[in-house]
Amino acid sequence: MYELFYWSGIQGRGEFVRLVLEETAQPYVDVGREKGDEAVAKALDGELAPYAFAPPVLRASDVVIAQTALITRWLGERHGLAPHDERGRLAAATITMTIADLVAEAHDTHHPITVEEAYEKQKGSARERARAFRENRIPKFVAYLERILEQNGNYLVGTMSYADLAAFQVVDGLDYAFPKAMAKQKIPKLRALRDRMSQRPRITTYLTSDRRLPFNETGIFRHYPELEAA
Amino acid sequence: MYELFYWSGIQGRGEFVRLVLEETAQPYVDVGREKGDEAVAKALDGELAPYAFAPPVLRASDVVIAQTALITRWLGERHGLAPHDERGRLAAATITMTIADLVAEAHDTHHPITVEEAYEKQKGSARERARAFRENRIPKFVAYLERILEQNGNYLVGTMSYADLAAFQVVDGLDYAFPKAMAKQKIPKLRALRDRMSQRPRITTYLTSDRRLPFNETGIFRHYPELEAA
Repeated sequence: MYELFYWSGIQGRGEFVRLVLEETAQPYVDVGREKGDEAVAKALDGELAPYAFAPPVLRASDVVIAQTALITRWLGERHGLAPHDERGRLAAATITMTIADLVAEAHDTHHPITVEEAYEKQKGSARERARAFRENRIPKFVAYLERILEQNGNYLVGTMSYADLAAFQVVDGLDYAFPKAMAKQKIPKLRALRDRMSQRPRITTYLTSDRRLPFNETGIFRHYPELEAA
Repeated sequence: MYELFYWSGIQGRGEFVRLVLEETAQPYVDVGREKGDEAVAKALDGELAPYAFAPPVLRASDVVIAQTALITRWLGERHGLAPHDERGRLAAATITMTIADLVAEAHDTHHPITVEEAYEKQKGSARERARAFRENRIPKFVAYLERILEQNGNYLVGTMSYADLAAFQVVDGLDYAFPKAMAKQKIPKLRALRDRMSQRPRITTYLTSDRRLPFNETGIFRHYPELEAA
């Protein structure tokens, strides 16, 4: 039985872990949602210390892992959702860490100065950072994923892996946060991958369950119309 | 024979890889320095594609790996600079990825808005972001590393690993960029670790060679006095 430690109320980075757990049909306790954010904070200072700097954290009996891309790699390789060969495993890990960088940049569009203050206190810089993100970074990152799919076909590393679920989630998040910018991207293969993932039976079940929270403006992917203004 | 693809002229993220290669006495070609940045750019679009999004990239015959923390983990596990057990390996990977996050945040102090424009075009936001970094983020990250050392002793995961070299490099970089803020941190064990790494024979040889470039204001860790002003 896995325990996922993540804040309740948002998809956040925890969602990348949830998708892998759901696709591989692993039972898990979503600690923040079931026991409250206080339980997550307390565990971070106690039983999850000292290696976990921030959620999400996964615990499997005496194994504690933090860092989203590391957790999903470990789960994927353990439960048949990763290539078997080393080159494939390194490719999936490289892609997933690059997606994690994209997620961090998406976060910083609404928090370009500090995580200690609300978005409303850093709106000016946010507007500038969001413009650069829309104009330069989104195109560069999605083109990177599209190119990989052009080479490898229906899945990022040839066989279905946790990297595909990460791509699904980041596309969904960016569609929510920056719908106009995303509509401009020419990414037919990445769009097809996103749809293919959403149609996997366990993922469909999950996405239509109430375990899948809607995106909102306390999460990582936030829709602020002013951050899409020219 | 390894090939490291990274921009010439700076330590940058490539330095984390170099330190592991030097400590494990692996011969390597530093492509940017030996063949120029054009060779790196060309390889990124060609032979290193499609998985490498950005340097550093390591090539070992037909294996291509990007993402600093992934490269150093792979090298560390391959060359005896990592724990042997799974829990230790996951701990070293978690710590190193957390250090990579710290490095990204250090970078964003001088580029809070966009990597497409020079620091001088984003100095106002940089000053704000640097203040938050000095006051909140540096203390949180170095306390995290100090706590691990308090638990585990002379090395982050009990035995010497690539994570210790990453800690050395990030402390050195932050000492260069934010000397006043770093002088305020109470981190005796992390300081001792930094010194212990610098005194390892191969690291000493490297640090005093001309392969070790000085920090400078085109790298990741930059010293701008105005970013340390109150």
